[in-house]
Amino acid sequence: MKPSTIKKKDKKLWAGRFSEATDPLVDIFTNSISFDYRLLPYDLMGSLAHLNMLARQRIIPGPEAKRIRSGLLEIQKEWNQGKLTFPLEDEDVHMFVEKRLRKKIGPIAGKLHTARSRNDQVALDLRLYLRDQIRDLKMELQSLQKTILETAKNQGHLVLPGYTHLQRAQPVILGHHLLAYLEMFSRDQERLSEVFRRVNSLPLGSAALAGTSFPIDRTQVAQALGFSQISPNSMDAVSDRDFVIEFLSAASILMMHYSRMSEELILWSGLEFDFVEISDAFCTGSSIMPQKKNPDVPELIRGKTGRVYGHLLGMLTTMKALPLTYNKDLQEDKEPVFDTVETLLNCTRLLSGLWSNIRFKAEVMEKAAETGYLLATDLADYLVKKGLDFRTAHQVVGTIVAYALERNLELRDLSLATLKTFHSVFKADVNTVLNLASAMSQRNSQGGTAPQQVKKAIREMEMRICSLQFDL
Amino acid sequence: MKPSTIKKKDKKLWAGRFSEATDPLVDIFTNSISFDYRLLPYDLMGSLAHLNMLARQRIIPGPEAKRIRSGLLEIQKEWNQGKLTFPLEDEDVHMFVEKRLRKKIGPIAGKLHTARSRNDQVALDLRLYLRDQIRDLKMELQSLQKTILETAKNQGHLVLPGYTHLQRAQPVILGHHLLAYLEMFSRDQERLSEVFRRVNSLPLGSAALAGTSFPIDRTQVAQALGFSQISPNSMDAVSDRDFVIEFLSAASILMMHYSRMSEELILWSGLEFDFVEISDAFCTGSSIMPQKKNPDVPELIRGKTGRVYGHLLGMLTTMKALPLTYNKDLQEDKEPVFDTVETLLNCTRLLSGLWSNIRFKAEVMEKAAETGYLLATDLADYLVKKGLDFRTAHQVVGTIVAYALERNLELRDLSLATLKTFHSVFKADVNTVLNLASAMSQRNSQGGTAPQQVKKAIREMEMRICSLQFDL
Amino acid sequence: MKPSTIKKKDKKLWAGRFSEATDPLVDIFTNSISFDYRLLPYDLMGSLAHLNMLARQRIIPGPEAKRIRSGLLEIQKEWNQGKLTFPLEDEDVHMFVEKRLRKKIGPIAGKLHTARSRNDQVALDLRLYLRDQIRDLKMELQSLQKTILETAKNQGHLVLPGYTHLQRAQPVILGHHLLAYLEMFSRDQERLSEVFRRVNSLPLGSAALAGTSFPIDRTQVAQALGFSQISPNSMDAVSDRDFVIEFLSAASILMMHYSRMSEELILWSGLEFDFVEISDAFCTGSSIMPQKKNPDVPELIRGKTGRVYGHLLGMLTTMKALPLTYNKDLQEDKEPVFDTVETLLNCTRLLSGLWSNIRFKAEVMEKAAETGYLLATDLADYLVKKGLDFRTAHQVVGTIVAYALERNLELRDLSLATLKTFHSVFKADVNTVLNLASAMSQRNSQGGTAPQQVKKAIREMEMRICSLQFDL
Amino acid sequence: MKPSTIKKKDKKLWAGRFSEATDPLVDIFTNSISFDYRLLPYDLMGSLAHLNMLARQRIIPGPEAKRIRSGLLEIQKEWNQGKLTFPLEDEDVHMFVEKRLRKKIGPIAGKLHTARSRNDQVALDLRLYLRDQIRDLKMELQSLQKTILETAKNQGHLVLPGYTHLQRAQPVILGHHLLAYLEMFSRDQERLSEVFRRVNSLPLGSAALAGTSFPIDRTQVAQALGFSQISPNSMDAVSDRDFVIEFLSAASILMMHYSRMSEELILWSGLEFDFVEISDAFCTGSSIMPQKKNPDVPELIRGKTGRVYGHLLGMLTTMKALPLTYNKDLQEDKEPVFDTVETLLNCTRLLSGLWSNIRFKAEVMEKAAETGYLLATDLADYLVKKGLDFRTAHQVVGTIVAYALERNLELRDLSLATLKTFHSVFKADVNTVLNLASAMSQRNSQGGTAPQQVKKAIREMEMRICSLQFDL
Repeated sequence: MKPSTIKKKDKKLWAGRFSEATDPLVDIFTNSISFDYRLLPYDLMGSLAHLNMLARQRIIPGPEAKRIRSGLLEIQKEWNQGKLTFPLEDEDVHMFVEKRLRKKIGPIAGKLHTARSRNDQVALDLRLYLRDQIRDLKMELQSLQKTILETAKNQGHLVLPGYTHLQRAQPVILGHHLLAYLEMFSRDQERLSEVFRRVNSLPLGSAALAGTSFPIDRTQVAQALGFSQISPNSMDAVSDRDFVIEFLSAASILMMHYSRMSEELILWSGLEFDFVEISDAFCTGSSIMPQKKNPDVPELIRGKTGRVYGHLLGMLTTMKALPLTYNKDLQEDKEPVFDTVETLLNCTRLLSGLWSNIRFKAEVMEKAAETGYLLATDLADYLVKKGLDFRTAHQVVGTIVAYALERNLELRDLSLATLKTFHSVFKADVNTVLNLASAMSQRNSQGGTAPQQVKKAIREMEMRICSLQFDL
Repeated sequence: MKPSTIKKKDKKLWAGRFSEATDPLVDIFTNSISFDYRLLPYDLMGSLAHLNMLARQRIIPGPEAKRIRSGLLEIQKEWNQGKLTFPLEDEDVHMFVEKRLRKKIGPIAGKLHTARSRNDQVALDLRLYLRDQIRDLKMELQSLQKTILETAKNQGHLVLPGYTHLQRAQPVILGHHLLAYLEMFSRDQERLSEVFRRVNSLPLGSAALAGTSFPIDRTQVAQALGFSQISPNSMDAVSDRDFVIEFLSAASILMMHYSRMSEELILWSGLEFDFVEISDAFCTGSSIMPQKKNPDVPELIRGKTGRVYGHLLGMLTTMKALPLTYNKDLQEDKEPVFDTVETLLNCTRLLSGLWSNIRFKAEVMEKAAETGYLLATDLADYLVKKGLDFRTAHQVVGTIVAYALERNLELRDLSLATLKTFHSVFKADVNTVLNLASAMSQRNSQGGTAPQQVKKAIREMEMRICSLQFDL
Repeated sequence: MKPSTIKKKDKKLWAGRFSEATDPLVDIFTNSISFDYRLLPYDLMGSLAHLNMLARQRIIPGPEAKRIRSGLLEIQKEWNQGKLTFPLEDEDVHMFVEKRLRKKIGPIAGKLHTARSRNDQVALDLRLYLRDQIRDLKMELQSLQKTILETAKNQGHLVLPGYTHLQRAQPVILGHHLLAYLEMFSRDQERLSEVFRRVNSLPLGSAALAGTSFPIDRTQVAQALGFSQISPNSMDAVSDRDFVIEFLSAASILMMHYSRMSEELILWSGLEFDFVEISDAFCTGSSIMPQKKNPDVPELIRGKTGRVYGHLLGMLTTMKALPLTYNKDLQEDKEPVFDTVETLLNCTRLLSGLWSNIRFKAEVMEKAAETGYLLATDLADYLVKKGLDFRTAHQVVGTIVAYALERNLELRDLSLATLKTFHSVFKADVNTVLNLASAMSQRNSQGGTAPQQVKKAIREMEMRICSLQFDL
Repeated sequence: MKPSTIKKKDKKLWAGRFSEATDPLVDIFTNSISFDYRLLPYDLMGSLAHLNMLARQRIIPGPEAKRIRSGLLEIQKEWNQGKLTFPLEDEDVHMFVEKRLRKKIGPIAGKLHTARSRNDQVALDLRLYLRDQIRDLKMELQSLQKTILETAKNQGHLVLPGYTHLQRAQPVILGHHLLAYLEMFSRDQERLSEVFRRVNSLPLGSAALAGTSFPIDRTQVAQALGFSQISPNSMDAVSDRDFVIEFLSAASILMMHYSRMSEELILWSGLEFDFVEISDAFCTGSSIMPQKKNPDVPELIRGKTGRVYGHLLGMLTTMKALPLTYNKDLQEDKEPVFDTVETLLNCTRLLSGLWSNIRFKAEVMEKAAETGYLLATDLADYLVKKGLDFRTAHQVVGTIVAYALERNLELRDLSLATLKTFHSVFKADVNTVLNLASAMSQRNSQGGTAPQQVKKAIREMEMRICSLQFDL
């Protein structure tokens, strides 16, 4: 942002009442064209719909509308061909288009701004943009869901420890563990759809803040642009950024889920856990340590969680205590959205790639599940089924664990005779309880880790994933 | 939190394998009973449903179940009578209930914990609590909506300046301004309903993390407790706190709306704006300045916005990068929810009270709307209707404003002759444009401030508010 | 917060100009006595200093000052004896004291408020409180530093893997690892001292916002209360809360450090790493899984990080865009400070206790350091010393690692002959490089992990810790 | 970030042990060159210092060092001439330099990386960068301080209302009000200096995490680069980002101050307050409303507060619970710093410009100070000086205000006779109290608004501002 990058410019389009030119630093500081140029295709889309309506309502004569339209289409073509550059002195994408149009077709370009203001125009552009991006994001997330589901189907039977407090707790199968993430993502899809519904409302026609005296037809514009709703109050329409915050909030929760998954991938790929091998293609090395293979992708995803949380908080702060209606502070709504969209799309695609190229180390995982008394709960449940109350059973088994721990034994290493010294109800059938496979198949409650439950859950999840709708 | 407040205690219920007592400081630090006692009625409700299911599934014999039930009901009665105190050494509300039950009915109290863990139990309790609170909050918000709607109906015709950039922009009527807030609150209601739907899912039956080997029936429990869903994956069920974050996010947006409204109330009640008089009952004075009457209520609401944002951010931070499943960190989920619920209920009630006791100063408001060239846009639109393109019209009027400003005149003070010096198309009919009432009635686009539009919008809003559902 | 808990009360002390009583809900909502009672000893301390000055300046006659003083001292005694209760209708701690004083000594109690306002009074109280708490916190942190230093001295020679990206990177000794934390804490001590300096400024005498017309002597008061500075501008003094935010910021960084340490303690105490055994006294068990011993303390500390971040963020939000001077929003400054102080003191004490009762598993740690090619960098450095450029050396060793990995060998398992096939400069002296002890003693650069460096660093750290000053 | 923008590239410099190429998406995702190119001059500066040390320590032969040096200087020249472009496939600024150097001077380029790692290198670069930026920021802030001080000196005598709760409270003079901001900025300068001191520590020589076996001399490097300290622990040095968070925290407080000042500028420039006219050069207009002149600059500054808070929070989140030492998450430290630096520099410069071009409306301000009973406290103090206790005096004046309010009178409009009906001690001398000028000159306590106090405070502030040091 060096002053020299701004050329001496012609008077601003809004500067009728001004007697002094804007300070060059102010031009740079208040400009948004350096980032809102991304909205250009949406700005054109909105302008075309507005123009058609103005023409149909005879607010602009047909022939003039035709000329304006052809001008706009030309700009659209230039954008598609990557020909446009965006000088800072054009302030924002809206002024850029108006000035460019004026160059092409002369002063009647000025007729396009009839019955609208930048206030409702920018709200429109951002909604059009976000609608597209949410659709894309939902599709990328669906891909990730499918990839993980595929893993759950192919390798879901592998046994590993389930953890609480990062301490081995009870054995689970991989499919069960992966379904936990798929549940999270299902909720993310839901939340994104809900945000989408509130994004999908037409603000155009609210003009500066109070509506317009021209006989516009907002329904026409809404239909042309595919909006399911028309904003019912013009003052709200130009000052509402709930949809931005909601999106950032849904994005933050999604990133939180990614950070949890990333944490596990990082743990699992270290030598201590050693449950997985992430493909070389998703790791990087060290500039100094030749042996290093680092799980950079999940690490960076975990790190980017802070970035997205920061955007959410920033936007909430910006909106705090703003009086109605539009305030310049609202210009700060765009960059966090753009950056969050890009971050989410990248993280989602990367995780899809990573999960397609991961190798599980079945033996290491299973061995871990066999070590650390993960069947102690089963032993307590066994005692309960023999008539003890659960709390007493828990105490008995706790004492057995302490005994085994001291001797460096696992539960399955204890003889029936030894067990009997802790409680007389132990019988030979206790052996079936202390077997990993049978123990897991016992946890057959709805939503439990028993393979038959997991198989059912995978089938249901598959249907849920495949029936996701993106023509929201 | 002084160590002396913890009494020497009996061994922990889970301490079978432990050889050393917990450090007293640890007991204090890790206890949650000092705040989660609020969940007691929900814990009992959940325990009763769990117990009935255990009995019906013959996991616990009927007569034992009967004794446990009567014990639980006794505790419920004690709670209702305000008789209970919660010593820190009881750790949490679950252990408190189990110990108290044991005192009443002996060791069979231990049977109640069959087929469940504190992990699924606390998730259940928090969901039951939040379900109730969201319902209450939605009802209080509806009251506020009705109060403001009433104001819109009674005083909606008053004229005041609409602002952008906190500069007078275009005249609006009060009803239009108030409807902007009602639109925000409508979205808040929607969001709360969506959160509610995801809160309303039964986690119980997930046990520690992997389900249970007892033949439980989760559907029975869900029906008994009125849940519309059963959590499909046990690992997710015990580690998911999305619903907490979602609630805090919806709460943050609601507080943001309150902060905007509060800002306006503060501005309006100062001598500079002087649009309203807030009732003495909603203001306080100064300990030193005898003349002061301060708008403490909206100020404090605005201030509490930070508190709720902080809770959202805190919870997002806490959840970042936690591996599955339950981690002790999750204990931090309760206080932010309790405090947010209390804050929101209070703010909502206070705003209802404040709006019921506010007096608008019609003359001051209208005078403000007449000063500051608020009809300049109308003048530009007039020129457009005479055939100028909007951009040129804008320039012409900008110059007229500069001219008037220099002479300390308003637009209506300029003679037709003077106007004609700026552009020849000005005709005598320009007078109708420069009239406040007629100008506003012209802004008759859908969602605009024209009185007929506002009246229609009020009718529709009334129907939306009255049709809100709380048996979600 | 139920309306019923407020009793019908006498007219407010500030209510001369008010014609209506405050709404009961407002009383509850705007009260701060429910939390600011903690400031009572500081309020008294400040009032006594103010009183003495008023007397010495002859603003209050000596005999009256004497009566007021004895009244204040009586209240102080009641506080020390734990006799006081704080009814909500007393609004805040200042009004509580004034009313209680009035009950004891009659209307001359009202003279105490001469030349001051609650605005400067509350700023004073909070600064006095925070000054004390920062001192305490610094002392507790020093204890923790000493405890960890002790561990570094006693067990600092143990070998463990140093990690980057949570992948084994290079071997380090425990003392070196612990010194990393001690460096963090040294910075925390510095930051707390800096905050202290800015807390330690006297706001009293600023009155409502503009100073006072009474001939007060602020220097006297500052000396009596031990302040090193007098606030130079009254408007700033009553609206400044930088010191609160600074404290919360220093607290957030400290919690961040604790969260990193906690993460490592959690990892290390799991079966996968298995480097440490945390004492039973600092762990808790599971209500359902009898074998569980959970590292609750570090988990909860990690979780509470979010809480403190949330307070920081909340306070920043609250202060955003507040016009000068005092606004009611500022009342929100106390609870986050109180809760943060309590959280930090607890976490610090708990970590001291935990570190005093931790057992390191030397063999497991060393074995981990021997597995995973942690000396690959040493091998590359060996090649550099033989004349290769570092980048080439890195490539050669990378290839060797790939070769060994495929054969499931460590570097030390490779024969000289094998190494020579990768590069001809390998000689017999390569063996000394591939030895853990000698490799570490080689990393003898300043601040490196070589035992002699670490010993020196421990000595220096000990001096830094012991020379910490708390009479700041 | 489209995959197509990455060209098929040569093998990574660290990829000896890798058998698969990095996924193109991963290259894009994990690259930092797209933003860390800003560090290039600092990277070169650090490399040159490192190189010289390596040569002097005979770790690299002199002639080779000479060639490397000339290569580095060439790159420096290219940077200064703006000739460099940074392809994504170069990963980061360090690899960019190494590869470019290799192109220039061949494989001995690889010798430069002897005894260092990217882990200590990036910490160095960021510290060098931030050291420079903090210096710049402190100088820009000093300019702003001087500009405001100038205003205080020239127009400091103007009278305006001082506000609490945004209600008129007591009259102050403009100089007094401005000094409140200058006090804030003085603290900001202090905080920035403190951060600077902790930034100013040399991490280089820590290598990957454990130091190096080469006989480096860190003191030489520190001196060459002007560091006042050498990081005492290598593990801390590569994983410490406290300095980033501290900077963001100091930045957040500064932005908070700017947001408060901006809020006041916005309020004051609206027609309701109408205290100031901001120059046209610092305002912008509306695309639709020809009369609008909006205070965009302060609005946007206020809005950007959220952005900076967000960066602080994001970074705190990213650092939470990271195990030692370097993790890829740390890569997220740069963008928030870059953006915060740019934001702060711009806001500071803009405010300087704005304050140089502001016009105060003395009459409007003074009239506001005369309306609204701003001397009620003076009247109460008058009664106290006549012997009433303050609380009683407050009540009496409160009642007088209520009386005047009802009759739409100001205090000065009340006759002595009327006053006497409220209390008999009122005498003719009461008139002197109810005079704006004399009332203000009475508030002569240290730090008060009396003109003589303010004059003294301005002199002292001038000395403080002029003695600010930037060769920190």
